[in-house]
Amino acid sequence: MCPSTKQKWFRNGLRNTTTRSSICGTTLLPQYEYIILSFFSISGAGYHSESKAKEYKHVCKRACQRAVDRLNAGALAVDAVAAALVELEDSPFTNAGMGSNLNLSGEIECDASIMDGKTLHYGAVGAISGIKNPVLVANRLLNEAQKGKLSAGRIPPCFLVGEGAHDWAINHGIAPCPSEKMATKFSLSAYKRNKRKMEMAEKVESGFNHQAKKRRQSTENENGSGLLDTVGAIVVDREGNVASAVSSGGLAMKHPGRVGQAAHHGCGCWAENTRTQNPYSTAVSTSGCGEHLIRTMLARECSSAMQSDDAHQALLEAMQNKFISSPFLASEDCVLGGVIVLRCSRCCDAQPSPDIQAILVEFLWSHTTESMCVGYMSAQDGKAKTHISRLPPEAVAGRSLAIEGGVCRLPNNT
Amino acid sequence: MCPSTKQKWFRNGLRNTTTRSSICGTTLLPQYEYIILSFFSISGAGYHSESKAKEYKHVCKRACQRAVDRLNAGALAVDAVAAALVELEDSPFTNAGMGSNLNLSGEIECDASIMDGKTLHYGAVGAISGIKNPVLVANRLLNEAQKGKLSAGRIPPCFLVGEGAHDWAINHGIAPCPSEKMATKFSLSAYKRNKRKMEMAEKVESGFNHQAKKRRQSTENENGSGLLDTVGAIVVDREGNVASAVSSGGLAMKHPGRVGQAAHHGCGCWAENTRTQNPYSTAVSTSGCGEHLIRTMLARECSSAMQSDDAHQALLEAMQNKFISSPFLASEDCVLGGVIVLRCSRCCDAQPSPDIQAILVEFLWSHTTESMCVGYMSAQDGKAKTHISRLPPEAVAGRSLAIEGGVCRLPNNT
Repeated sequence: MCPSTKQKWFRNGLRNTTTRSSICGTTLLPQYEYIILSFFSISGAGYHSESKAKEYKHVCKRACQRAVDRLNAGALAVDAVAAALVELEDSPFTNAGMGSNLNLSGEIECDASIMDGKTLHYGAVGAISGIKNPVLVANRLLNEAQKGKLSAGRIPPCFLVGEGAHDWAINHGIAPCPSEKMATKFSLSAYKRNKRKMEMAEKVESGFNHQAKKRRQSTENENGSGLLDTVGAIVVDREGNVASAVSSGGLAMKHPGRVGQAAHHGCGCWAENTRTQNPYSTAVSTSGCGEHLIRTMLARECSSAMQSDDAHQALLEAMQNKFISSPFLASEDCVLGGVIVLRCSRCCDAQPSPDIQAILVEFLWSHTTESMCVGYMSAQDGKAKTHISRLPPEAVAGRSLAIEGGVCRLPNNT
Repeated sequence: MCPSTKQKWFRNGLRNTTTRSSICGTTLLPQYEYIILSFFSISGAGYHSESKAKEYKHVCKRACQRAVDRLNAGALAVDAVAAALVELEDSPFTNAGMGSNLNLSGEIECDASIMDGKTLHYGAVGAISGIKNPVLVANRLLNEAQKGKLSAGRIPPCFLVGEGAHDWAINHGIAPCPSEKMATKFSLSAYKRNKRKMEMAEKVESGFNHQAKKRRQSTENENGSGLLDTVGAIVVDREGNVASAVSSGGLAMKHPGRVGQAAHHGCGCWAENTRTQNPYSTAVSTSGCGEHLIRTMLARECSSAMQSDDAHQALLEAMQNKFISSPFLASEDCVLGGVIVLRCSRCCDAQPSPDIQAILVEFLWSHTTESMCVGYMSAQDGKAKTHISRLPPEAVAGRSLAIEGGVCRLPNNT
């Protein structure tokens, strides 16, 4: 599949200046039965070299393939998106599941969530340890909640954290994974490096004996070390159902028990099928600095914005006004994040057959991080397309954004 | 202080029928310097007897008084709201802090969050044990986040859970509280009763050997046993800043690690000072079934709704369309929750003095639970007013709602 519209805008320098750098033409490509997008965002020096980029692309490709395999086997969007996430979590190159960032205590604690646009159910786990695929626990929570009440009329949980989440997973047949298998050579050496860096920074700060002032002035950003490589995916299936999921090992050297946007309803992912008030089905997944994404509720904001006529303009404005320049982040000078967005609506143009009502699918990605790796694939594709989207050289990460995307048409089999 | 407008609507029987039962006149009362509301919702038989109601009212009164004392001492809204919550948490009658519901393992795990409308910062803890006042940890997280980055440019957390949250609290000078002191005679006997009830229900269900089917059909609701008595408060200070907070021990017999709306950004509480896009400052706190309040993001929805002209109508519609009849809860036949809402705007009528710009404050509460206890107080009041709002006898809890509220005028000292 080839994105027929490729648009790119950048925001450089001043926060309120937007320049549109290039807009290409639009053509609709028919005959895609469903489409999935997977991604992870990459930020900082040293991680978007061509050699790393190759690995990232491979992971995204495999994730798309896994989802398409599930869809081909008759699965709905929510199962396909979970399958894509498993592949992304299993890669030692991503900050999710296997190979996640270590926290202050040298442990791995993961966040993940999933949302089904058809039922609007969601499941999430936060700060969970010893589970290889946190997204599978989130998905199982979603599935269990859909079965209705527990014994004695108890309402099933949609969000579990820590040890309780781990024990629930084991009781529901999900295998534990020893912590030493979750860490990789890469994540362990990053931990040691970060620990040294932190200890040095603290020594310098206490040496100056005005730590509080230093804290406020600190401009050094550990996120500049490739520590935001969290993963997500969005899917539309042949019935037009949308689903989204996200998974993250969280910020490196985070405090134990810290939960980021990946476990937070409305912040890490969002999916809503079309209904009376919403002309479009939308799915969103986010990556970046968890605290910023929580405080701005970026996934839900982008989903709401997508109900406007012009998807590209709506996403541009959402990323600009609801994220970079959000009043919720007024004190932040570097706002790092990325989103993948998908929206579907009925095609109004001539149909190939009166029995087939086509669905128009627009898919976009946008980021304020230096780069973001995106993969996309439809049922008909032999393999996924991947792309590393980058801010232009003169743009400042955390203050500028890039938007790209495509459009295609699916026959609707409902 | 006396609410000069008292309005009440009910929704009876069919989900889409609304009847307005009575609307009284509106008069503006001048000279209130600030106002606070505290509440907790009560549901189910046996808990809203007159004798219990008296205890509930006392707790709400003390909470209001505590906040007013802080405001009189020069504190801003966010500190006052935290003080009110401490009082509510310390009561053995509320399901928050001391005397919280016990989980499946017989332990107490609490959720709490706080939001400052001035800075738009928020802090939250989930599934935290061994801390008498979870709201103080949430408030400390909020305060620490406002100081800026940690050493080596790390972003401070806004949401901590479980053991990590407990350890962070201790490291920040908050005293631990032994678990045995957190449980009360009442919460322990409720645990034993609920455990027996659950075991019996499971025996019956497995006896029929079609548990899955039973689960879906179960209409028995443990929330009918007074288990939703969580607490919250909202405040506007003399500068017109708003703040909100919420605290909960969660559902009785919940799975360990379960986190409810009280720790969830946008679901448990919300506060936003007025700004360019928002003509009104708003503060909201919610109580009820955590999963329903998370999935509907009720606090933020009510806050958004409050930007409409008619506050009462906006809250009625929000409770009806975004909660009882929400597409996110389409499969639920009993949607239990309550909110307290406060909104402020500049008065347009004649001012007592050109130096004093009055602020109009509208305060409302609404609930689908059988009853809700509300307290309110201004700086000039000798003591708080309290009120137990109830659904009318013919109304069905979880399908009908009640709305009441008042309005007053504050001189603005900014």
